[in-house]
Amino acid sequence: MSSDRDDFQAERTRLQELMLARGSRTTKRFLNLDAAVYREGVLEPRLKELLGLVASAVLRCDDCIRYHLDQAHDAGWSSDEIREALDVALVVGGSITIPHLRRAYAVLEELDTGR
Amino acid sequence: MSSDRDDFQAERTRLQELMLARGSRTTKRFLNLDAAVYREGVLEPRLKELLGLVASAVLRCDDCIRYHLDQAHDAGWSSDEIREALDVALVVGGSITIPHLRRAYAVLEELDTGR
Amino acid sequence: MSSDRDDFQAERTRLQELMLARGSRTTKRFLNLDAAVYREGVLEPRLKELLGLVASAVLRCDDCIRYHLDQAHDAGWSSDEIREALDVALVVGGSITIPHLRRAYAVLEELDTGR
Amino acid sequence: MSSDRDDFQAERTRLQELMLARGSRTTKRFLNLDAAVYREGVLEPRLKELLGLVASAVLRCDDCIRYHLDQAHDAGWSSDEIREALDVALVVGGSITIPHLRRAYAVLEELDTGR
Amino acid sequence: MSSDRDDFQAERTRLQELMLARGSRTTKRFLNLDAAVYREGVLEPRLKELLGLVASAVLRCDDCIRYHLDQAHDAGWSSDEIREALDVALVVGGSITIPHLRRAYAVLEELDTGR
Amino acid sequence: MSSDRDDFQAERTRLQELMLARGSRTTKRFLNLDAAVYREGVLEPRLKELLGLVASAVLRCDDCIRYHLDQAHDAGWSSDEIREALDVALVVGGSITIPHLRRAYAVLEELDTGR
Repeated sequence: MSSDRDDFQAERTRLQELMLARGSRTTKRFLNLDAAVYREGVLEPRLKELLGLVASAVLRCDDCIRYHLDQAHDAGWSSDEIREALDVALVVGGSITIPHLRRAYAVLEELDTGR
Repeated sequence: MSSDRDDFQAERTRLQELMLARGSRTTKRFLNLDAAVYREGVLEPRLKELLGLVASAVLRCDDCIRYHLDQAHDAGWSSDEIREALDVALVVGGSITIPHLRRAYAVLEELDTGR
Repeated sequence: MSSDRDDFQAERTRLQELMLARGSRTTKRFLNLDAAVYREGVLEPRLKELLGLVASAVLRCDDCIRYHLDQAHDAGWSSDEIREALDVALVVGGSITIPHLRRAYAVLEELDTGR
Repeated sequence: MSSDRDDFQAERTRLQELMLARGSRTTKRFLNLDAAVYREGVLEPRLKELLGLVASAVLRCDDCIRYHLDQAHDAGWSSDEIREALDVALVVGGSITIPHLRRAYAVLEELDTGR
Repeated sequence: MSSDRDDFQAERTRLQELMLARGSRTTKRFLNLDAAVYREGVLEPRLKELLGLVASAVLRCDDCIRYHLDQAHDAGWSSDEIREALDVALVVGGSITIPHLRRAYAVLEELDTGR
Repeated sequence: MSSDRDDFQAERTRLQELMLARGSRTTKRFLNLDAAVYREGVLEPRLKELLGLVASAVLRCDDCIRYHLDQAHDAGWSSDEIREALDVALVVGGSITIPHLRRAYAVLEELDTGR
């Protein structure tokens, strides 16, 4: 069954592939590094998903927030844990983050109901 | 009669309620504080709406700008006064704010024609 | 034949005219200055289009990026050259710029196929 | 008697004059516009000083905050009123503004004791 | 023995107390909330220190980074773990964060040598 | 003869080496990429120095601006050309960039007098 989550990921994948196809060697190296930084090191990858989520939230990037919500959910963080991480972004980043957090809360509802 | 303004406010209210329902005690405290800061103190609340508007404009948050345009209009500021406040945001924040200001000008037209 | 590019430019022009019509003398002076800064001086205007593009990309303003992509393309920069300028934005501004760069790459495809 | 306030203003003036001396016609036009936007229009200039202060605070520019604190103080706003304007910046901009607000509070102490 | 770390914390404490003494009820509520968000909830406080650190790093606030480095160190994170958290900030926030990260690395040297 | 420019570069080099010594493989890959992006490709490296400068100016990073001023000067751009590139940053980024541009103008004076 198709879903909003699938649509988001499909469009993201399509454009990511365009970027890899057309980008320079520098572009490709950056995109590889962007994947590598969330993988195993001295910190658990699942912890780093929360770091990426909070960084995305204070920088107010909806697509990045959406991506890291999916990743954090898949890594086994509960919605309550994710919302508490977003509280840090709310206090650090201020009320200007609220429209983005509202949309994040709506995504978490979808993830919780399995849509 | 339904309108764009009503739609914006209804969706905002729906998600704000979701955030209050699902959020932690910290989330709720922040949202209460976000309401309290614009209420009476030593500065008039209507003046603080303009402060919130300019802060939203230089931080380039469309939803926040939209919200404060409604509030500033309801508080009795004329569209000319609001546009002059936005001039401060334009000079401080630079041309990068222009796409947001264009949309703000379109909202002011709606507010002026009573739509 | 109408196109996405034409639509973007038509809407931009409509709102820019609203801003010029309703704005104060300060608003108009800013908008004039915003046009003047990209024109001939000691640097070529076409070089300044790339500067405007990179500034827009690190500040993550989709409408501004879109505008400068059109301008840079019209000024004769190839898509490979434009993508290399965007690499600078990617490294300076980080992965948070990627969603905007993905959309920029999609626009460059349109410009290359003449749509 | 020389003071920290005088030093700040003297250095600011020296560099502003350098910028006017060396800058292009565009630079000069921008600097003139930056002065003009705070002068009389449909809003009182003193109100616009608070708008400039809050914009500077959420964008976290110490020199700009310092400048607008002086201007707001000279325009007759009390320190309590100025701190309440900064509360809007604090809630909108979040805890990341706190180091800048701490320094602003220290400047207000100086202004209140006439140093 | 006095140290750079002690000096930083003493000045921070002095100004924080000034802010609490002079600030409005809103100011105080915000400062309380800023402390509360890092305390126990469904996530461990020590994890939230890393979230605060990464948020501070991508928003490029030296004082905030310094504060969270101290907190993270006191919470038992090793310098290698902290640097890996900062890697997320580096990739998300880009090369513009590097001057701040360089200073963070210097602080970590101090913390490791017990100065 | 020692100079301010030498001091800046020496401190930058010292901390950069610390970052390379202590950083993870990800850190090192990012720093390598940060150097690579300004080297030859389809655009001239000297042009990319101006792109890096304007990106640094709108993101308001003094150390980054300082670094790219040195690089742009060494690449043969005149101070008038560099100031015109900074005009783009001024208009795009607004008056909030002015304190940084004032300092950039002071650095250009030093570079022109060979200090």
